[in-house]
Amino acid sequence: MKKIGIIGAGSWGTALATVVADKGNPVKIWDIDAGHLQRMEENRENVDYLPGVPLGENIAIALSQEDALRDADVVLFSAPAQHFRSALEGALPYIKDDALIINVAKGIEQKSLKRMSEIAADVLDMDRYVMLSGPSHAEEVGRKLPTTVATASRNLKAAEAIQDLFMTERFRVYTTDDVVGVELGGALKNIIALGAGVSDGMGFGDNAKAALMTRGLAEITRLGLKLGARAETFAGLTGTGDLIVTCTSMHSRNRRCGIMIGEGMSPQEATEKVGMVVEGMFTTEAAYELARREGVEMPITEAIYRAIKGEIKAADAVGMLMTRDKKREQD
Amino acid sequence: MKKIGIIGAGSWGTALATVVADKGNPVKIWDIDAGHLQRMEENRENVDYLPGVPLGENIAIALSQEDALRDADVVLFSAPAQHFRSALEGALPYIKDDALIINVAKGIEQKSLKRMSEIAADVLDMDRYVMLSGPSHAEEVGRKLPTTVATASRNLKAAEAIQDLFMTERFRVYTTDDVVGVELGGALKNIIALGAGVSDGMGFGDNAKAALMTRGLAEITRLGLKLGARAETFAGLTGTGDLIVTCTSMHSRNRRCGIMIGEGMSPQEATEKVGMVVEGMFTTEAAYELARREGVEMPITEAIYRAIKGEIKAADAVGMLMTRDKKREQD
Repeated sequence: MKKIGIIGAGSWGTALATVVADKGNPVKIWDIDAGHLQRMEENRENVDYLPGVPLGENIAIALSQEDALRDADVVLFSAPAQHFRSALEGALPYIKDDALIINVAKGIEQKSLKRMSEIAADVLDMDRYVMLSGPSHAEEVGRKLPTTVATASRNLKAAEAIQDLFMTERFRVYTTDDVVGVELGGALKNIIALGAGVSDGMGFGDNAKAALMTRGLAEITRLGLKLGARAETFAGLTGTGDLIVTCTSMHSRNRRCGIMIGEGMSPQEATEKVGMVVEGMFTTEAAYELARREGVEMPITEAIYRAIKGEIKAADAVGMLMTRDKKREQD
Repeated sequence: MKKIGIIGAGSWGTALATVVADKGNPVKIWDIDAGHLQRMEENRENVDYLPGVPLGENIAIALSQEDALRDADVVLFSAPAQHFRSALEGALPYIKDDALIINVAKGIEQKSLKRMSEIAADVLDMDRYVMLSGPSHAEEVGRKLPTTVATASRNLKAAEAIQDLFMTERFRVYTTDDVVGVELGGALKNIIALGAGVSDGMGFGDNAKAALMTRGLAEITRLGLKLGARAETFAGLTGTGDLIVTCTSMHSRNRRCGIMIGEGMSPQEATEKVGMVVEGMFTTEAAYELARREGVEMPITEAIYRAIKGEIKAADAVGMLMTRDKKREQD
């Protein structure tokens, strides 16, 4: 039995709280939004982000960040990627020296172009750091539908400790030491999800979307390899698996945003209408910059980048992709 | 301009006829079902299998198999996989010695466990043989929605000739020389589509299906590598792409059959209710045999095999998969 402190009471932080709490581990969950926490306490349910899932008796709403973290053996961060740095810095004074740190944020920091573990490495011993990722809509985990994820750490013992902590008959956990691959797969797939949404919004079919996903996976894998990831990780749950779930489900904000752009809405309007963070908009810009820096050809990312920047229309982006030179598939 | 003879007037043979005919190539199409051909001639439309797509003036309904093949520069076979051998043998006497042969059937021959190109190699110079495959529902190609496929031949010049023949702004064609990989990807993905259907039929969500597809892709890739295919082909359009389109679309007979099994119908009833060939049922048996012969671990294929043989219930198959030993992802 371990004590868990969770920073960030969105849908995913809350769903993960239910998994470990149902196994008998005491959980304290905290969020920067005090009103949101209060509503969770009053309803004993995350009515804002994970309605319909009662909070079990092992889940306590923390009175303060310190209350959540002081005794925690494991601290889980589920802040949005662009806020991970400040969340970590704010929490660090309260975290025990030997606590394991889990992060579930998927993204690349704007401007610095840093991965989440690169941000963490500035202030943490990375033998304590574990990324948890995979094809996992919170809504389904909350409903106890079968779900499979991976934990990644340069220290496999830490990844295995988190595997033990979460593993149930409905939540299967694999381990890996390819932190870079897991992080990049989870972040970059949001670019392709945006594009898949655009394709759907334009009324294209399953053939077009499957081709976009496949060629998109190939190009984000190319970038990943340049940045030190392993190809097999992109082929796994945190790459291909997460790509599939994000591109084919209405749960995905990135895909919903893309659909509105494909239907003719401006990227700005579409983002506002989604009303929550559309991480893929940041990630597309970051990947575009990284691809230029690393000299990697990413035609799909470039087309999406130019579409969300308003340089081209979505229809022209499709034309760009379908009328490139004839190619061998592995060129 | 080339003359094309097509054997098999199902939805896919007809859709491919429209692609080359719209580019100005004269097409003659023939089918073993004379009544079906007559209805196509009367309606100038394949009302049985591809309704809503008018046959253009360059498409002729052949009066006989000989009429379809006599002058053809390119012969395209779109018979079901289990009938490819007899279709090829029946057609061979009428085919010009220098005609290129395209096959689009995806499957493994029962009992012999042969791939389609192994069947062809018994009677054909394989420098003339091209497989065309990829994520491509006929209904969408008929409606001119963007579609991307690959042509595969040990003779890249032949693959490129077929690429030139089909390529349009809405039908993008890549080439490869990995015939084994293209054939196995197209065939084995039907096993996973059956499984994805079962998952959907049981009311599981997107997380479970994405995990099944990802781990399924990993195990069919393992078998493919043993049989001489390249991993990159399984990661491409004819592997990952075709897997995605088949597992996520209601166009797929394999997935529809799986859904009914997941809802509790017996495999036999489900097959009868689909009413057309459910190639994945044959392929699951063939893959199960091949995996045993080659010593490859395929837990998903084995679970599906045992479910369609009636040895276990679909729910037990899921349990088997979720409660295996803890693993590293790449084990």
